[in-house]
Amino acid sequence: MERRRVGILGATGMVGQRFIQLLSQHPWFEIAWIAASDRSAGKRYDEACRWKLETPLPPSVASMTLSPNVPEGTPASELPRIIFAALDSAIAHELEPKFAAAGCAVISNSSAFRMTSDVPLVVPEVNAGHLALIEQQAWRKASTGYIVTNPNCCAIGLVLALAPLEATFGIEKLFVSTLQAVSGAGYPGVASLDILGNVIPFIQNEEEKLQEEVGKLLGTLADTQDHVSPAALTLSAHCNRVAVLDGHTECVSIKLRQPATREQILEAWAGFHPLRGIHEGQPLPSAPDQPVEYEDAIDRPQPRLDLMRGRGMSTTVGRLRPCTLFDWKFTLLSHNTIRGAAGAALLNAEMLALLGKLDWKTSSSIPSPRTL
Amino acid sequence: MERRRVGILGATGMVGQRFIQLLSQHPWFEIAWIAASDRSAGKRYDEACRWKLETPLPPSVASMTLSPNVPEGTPASELPRIIFAALDSAIAHELEPKFAAAGCAVISNSSAFRMTSDVPLVVPEVNAGHLALIEQQAWRKASTGYIVTNPNCCAIGLVLALAPLEATFGIEKLFVSTLQAVSGAGYPGVASLDILGNVIPFIQNEEEKLQEEVGKLLGTLADTQDHVSPAALTLSAHCNRVAVLDGHTECVSIKLRQPATREQILEAWAGFHPLRGIHEGQPLPSAPDQPVEYEDAIDRPQPRLDLMRGRGMSTTVGRLRPCTLFDWKFTLLSHNTIRGAAGAALLNAEMLALLGKLDWKTSSSIPSPRTL
Amino acid sequence: MERRRVGILGATGMVGQRFIQLLSQHPWFEIAWIAASDRSAGKRYDEACRWKLETPLPPSVASMTLSPNVPEGTPASELPRIIFAALDSAIAHELEPKFAAAGCAVISNSSAFRMTSDVPLVVPEVNAGHLALIEQQAWRKASTGYIVTNPNCCAIGLVLALAPLEATFGIEKLFVSTLQAVSGAGYPGVASLDILGNVIPFIQNEEEKLQEEVGKLLGTLADTQDHVSPAALTLSAHCNRVAVLDGHTECVSIKLRQPATREQILEAWAGFHPLRGIHEGQPLPSAPDQPVEYEDAIDRPQPRLDLMRGRGMSTTVGRLRPCTLFDWKFTLLSHNTIRGAAGAALLNAEMLALLGKLDWKTSSSIPSPRTL
Amino acid sequence: MERRRVGILGATGMVGQRFIQLLSQHPWFEIAWIAASDRSAGKRYDEACRWKLETPLPPSVASMTLSPNVPEGTPASELPRIIFAALDSAIAHELEPKFAAAGCAVISNSSAFRMTSDVPLVVPEVNAGHLALIEQQAWRKASTGYIVTNPNCCAIGLVLALAPLEATFGIEKLFVSTLQAVSGAGYPGVASLDILGNVIPFIQNEEEKLQEEVGKLLGTLADTQDHVSPAALTLSAHCNRVAVLDGHTECVSIKLRQPATREQILEAWAGFHPLRGIHEGQPLPSAPDQPVEYEDAIDRPQPRLDLMRGRGMSTTVGRLRPCTLFDWKFTLLSHNTIRGAAGAALLNAEMLALLGKLDWKTSSSIPSPRTL
Repeated sequence: MERRRVGILGATGMVGQRFIQLLSQHPWFEIAWIAASDRSAGKRYDEACRWKLETPLPPSVASMTLSPNVPEGTPASELPRIIFAALDSAIAHELEPKFAAAGCAVISNSSAFRMTSDVPLVVPEVNAGHLALIEQQAWRKASTGYIVTNPNCCAIGLVLALAPLEATFGIEKLFVSTLQAVSGAGYPGVASLDILGNVIPFIQNEEEKLQEEVGKLLGTLADTQDHVSPAALTLSAHCNRVAVLDGHTECVSIKLRQPATREQILEAWAGFHPLRGIHEGQPLPSAPDQPVEYEDAIDRPQPRLDLMRGRGMSTTVGRLRPCTLFDWKFTLLSHNTIRGAAGAALLNAEMLALLGKLDWKTSSSIPSPRTL
Repeated sequence: MERRRVGILGATGMVGQRFIQLLSQHPWFEIAWIAASDRSAGKRYDEACRWKLETPLPPSVASMTLSPNVPEGTPASELPRIIFAALDSAIAHELEPKFAAAGCAVISNSSAFRMTSDVPLVVPEVNAGHLALIEQQAWRKASTGYIVTNPNCCAIGLVLALAPLEATFGIEKLFVSTLQAVSGAGYPGVASLDILGNVIPFIQNEEEKLQEEVGKLLGTLADTQDHVSPAALTLSAHCNRVAVLDGHTECVSIKLRQPATREQILEAWAGFHPLRGIHEGQPLPSAPDQPVEYEDAIDRPQPRLDLMRGRGMSTTVGRLRPCTLFDWKFTLLSHNTIRGAAGAALLNAEMLALLGKLDWKTSSSIPSPRTL
Repeated sequence: MERRRVGILGATGMVGQRFIQLLSQHPWFEIAWIAASDRSAGKRYDEACRWKLETPLPPSVASMTLSPNVPEGTPASELPRIIFAALDSAIAHELEPKFAAAGCAVISNSSAFRMTSDVPLVVPEVNAGHLALIEQQAWRKASTGYIVTNPNCCAIGLVLALAPLEATFGIEKLFVSTLQAVSGAGYPGVASLDILGNVIPFIQNEEEKLQEEVGKLLGTLADTQDHVSPAALTLSAHCNRVAVLDGHTECVSIKLRQPATREQILEAWAGFHPLRGIHEGQPLPSAPDQPVEYEDAIDRPQPRLDLMRGRGMSTTVGRLRPCTLFDWKFTLLSHNTIRGAAGAALLNAEMLALLGKLDWKTSSSIPSPRTL
Repeated sequence: MERRRVGILGATGMVGQRFIQLLSQHPWFEIAWIAASDRSAGKRYDEACRWKLETPLPPSVASMTLSPNVPEGTPASELPRIIFAALDSAIAHELEPKFAAAGCAVISNSSAFRMTSDVPLVVPEVNAGHLALIEQQAWRKASTGYIVTNPNCCAIGLVLALAPLEATFGIEKLFVSTLQAVSGAGYPGVASLDILGNVIPFIQNEEEKLQEEVGKLLGTLADTQDHVSPAALTLSAHCNRVAVLDGHTECVSIKLRQPATREQILEAWAGFHPLRGIHEGQPLPSAPDQPVEYEDAIDRPQPRLDLMRGRGMSTTVGRLRPCTLFDWKFTLLSHNTIRGAAGAALLNAEMLALLGKLDWKTSSSIPSPRTL
């Protein structure tokens, strides 16, 4: 199969680097265009970027030239129709609509449009049906372009663990306390003087994002297919930064709508395979075989030991135990720059490809939420 | 004033070292006897101990010889009547009663007897009145010896912040999620391979201790003065170990019995001075002037910046904000080996001295809980 | 090709775990037997071992039963002839000869016999010819068993960088200052209280090992093939422990016997491919394609970014620059538990297999040092 | 005694904060003026500064208003004659001469003028006599102002340990490898992504500074009193950044001009009290009683345990042992933002005060190098 040409907005940042790492050997996509801010545009990638990942910068990308981060900076014939966006929120707010208006599928990791009513906020295992929202977007109607978003890095790992519980028992309320890695703040991000031997009990807007995004992710697509009614759950979040490189740990206390035994909960997680079989023969390349893995050892999950489960795309859950206030307590871990950012967007793109939304030829219908 | 002779059980461990650091220049107490396990007994302190504190080992203690950790290993005339105990729980369970039976005031940091009904579990600012329980102890009646305990390192910092809220508004329930320092596990304690760049979401028995000790601390001494009725609150705890040397951070969501505004809560903390004036002229040497300090900056408290407030004896609180589930959320920080261990025991001893319970001459009556 | 059955002594320790990780999918070897001390013998591996690696414990090993760590504890027919040994030095001193006497090839990571005159201390790219020493060993003559060792974790990374310089220019003297990872001390090893935010400027016996092992590694096998004359170089080492998980960094100042330009040195490293072509068609499975990689960026090598070059088997060198005292200065990085321990032994085993020394059938002659 | 009014240039940076911390209770000096760049000038200090020290921001400074960092921005009558400068080198190069020209004694921590021939580069215990150079400065002659500098943070700790060896035995050459704390890079400085679990083997210009400054510090003031002839020693430096908050560790191999036994070296350090007795009755307030402390334990000095010796003003030395290449090896530790920066400048100011160079009344003669 010929690989689809894709572009990356914000290619030099930490999430941009993860996009390059994950896309450089992707079976469906090929990096054809990379862009960065004015400061870097026009430079070779390896001159503009301080590569910070533990695997080498792919040579084919190293020698690419960074384009300006606007559609008109590139001849239309060369601009890919699929754009992965790794931009700061304020910049995303300005630039992403330009690419959507230019006819691109903008698959965004930014928070700028996550809560916009006709923009899907999607984790494919959880709410792929919400992708139908794109058909309501003005850009889609005008140019066939659109914007799809993935959640905040904390919300993704959490919602994977919550989705099977919501489906099986219903969730009434939950308390979430996070211990988040420094890579979530980008580069240079958190100063070493602030985090060595320390904890920072504050991350700008993080608690708010987590509280609102989970509701939309677990919500229901209206019959009119033009908005999502948020799930009727209440979440209270405490977000902390700790001296961890990659991997967000989250402590959860949860109150369910129906009683559930420990065994039933473990079964709900073990049996959570929403993407199995939807694509006959071949799974989505970035989808983990087991989106939620339960680790039985008493002191797990741990970033150092469990981070790369499912190639960084699985949520690891552990320590399921009764809660004195709600029903159950557990701890989860998720890779914040793979599943929590670039990998999330990539999986969204793979799902869009499966649904024919990256073809601009056929018009395969979006599966209903039920089916997924 | 002549300083009282005191002894230290478990003098070579991390808490034992803090006892030595804090007692070496104490105005009321003088280190006259130190003891350790059989492996170390008979050795000079500086030969038996790997000193791990950032201030030098006091020379006067360095040259002292470690005694065996049983009363009969030391001539009765030389055994101090005041014994600070920094023992592991199982060993404390065996040894502390021997010293109480030998007529000593055992001021213990161990968990062994904290929940025993006639043993006071005390933080002087919170429940000094509970010290009256000692008069019910069989040891006290037989030999005038007794055991007094201080809480777990997490419970102390927390209960200081809770006490004025309980007194003013009443507390119905609370979630607590901790990010605890490695020094809490003693030496060698946590292996560096387990915590560098990592989080361990489990500390043996810690959640259980926190959940039960807070109830006793905020409880009411029965009129019979022989037990404490625990406070009617429910606490759910998540305890985590992080790569911090000293300082436990705790995220709290709290539901009060009566509504409280932000200002009222801040006032309750600012006005919390239970030990002011109880000892005319001279405060307890280890008591902080302000037991609960509120830090207004949005990203505080932090271990690196706030650890030593009140010479390590104050709890720093910050980020008071509404909770979507309960009433209020806040973050607190407390020094786990000063206020959370050795300093806690020392303050208990100072309170006992004030009450005449270290004199074995007069019989000053214990003040009622009301007064304190 | 059928895979050879191998055993692992000390299978539960950190190096033992790396052996299991590296061997579990090895094309030539198959884990058939694992052993541990009396405390663990008889238990299932996953019950006896606290697995500390970032990849999962292979299920096939998890369910294996640990044998006693003596040859007579296992029926002779089941004891593999190839034994990887990951034992503490004192224990290795006692146990390794027993396995050699029992006819096994003991491929040891311990320091016990490294400097014994008829025991090869080998890094295949550097001095594979020294393997001829095994024919002098009394065990070899009596039972066909023998002992082969690999160097200390610091010496391996260093000697890879030195070997091409010694061959091309000669080395007269060098200073080496190390910044070593905590995994080098095993588990639990370095206490977190000792290394968080700290440096420990001392590692027991490390400077001595580094100083003497490099001489033997770069030495010349005597014509009598019964000992190695050490290279005539002088090394002065300063060894430090730092808060790094894996990866030893070494700062080197070197005085050569013949003048060398920067380009000549870079060429010597780039052209160092001693194992290319020795095994027609198929390289040694664990051998890196480029044993010494030079990284040009001014602030490299770094553990976080360069650790896994050559799948953890390459030494990364950087910052080649003139030295005011000697000729040149540079910095190198090597993975201390892969190339510096388990991977080193594994590569030794692969070389022994290539030389027919693991067959106990043919008697292929050992290639002379010249050839290698 | 009335305290002299002083000002601080660059008051909001990390070194500026240390100046405030150390000066806020100084017996001789009083903070009367603080300045910062245009971005901060005009703001209250506590609004412009992110205070990063472990002790609270002194309230008296918190409410001060930051002046512009040029002399003409402040009425001449209010500008202090004593200016502590904590500026980046390029800015110092531009601004410090303006203050010297305005008649101020500029006591600078910057590298801008350290190697200028008529600018003293001074550590009072080592080469206070070099302060005579100020009389040659054009500023001094024109306006009575002048510039005095202290060395790079690595050079200070080192030169304290070297000075008694140079005086007693002579130093021919030395090799120095450093493990430097992140605070040396200011705030935000080193990104946490670059240093957590990592080592950076490069610090811009650091090796060069160390190599040249030591020569000037140990050099001889020419009879003409207009320049310093550098000491005839050769130094080769390797500088590394490690995950330590405060405290530079340095590994040293040294070749002396005359043979020295271990005891003689220890005596030279123990007997190094150059400032004792120079100021009858009252020592310089910031001078440590023992500038070089030797710690005998085999694994010391360590940042965590030895950092604050002499209130952060002493160099701790340990591990004196023979070197296979030179004569002796040892390890030293020095606080890089106290002794290595703000404390160094402060001690220079105290020495200048003692010499009458802060009076602008009397003209006490500078003592000759011999005397000091």
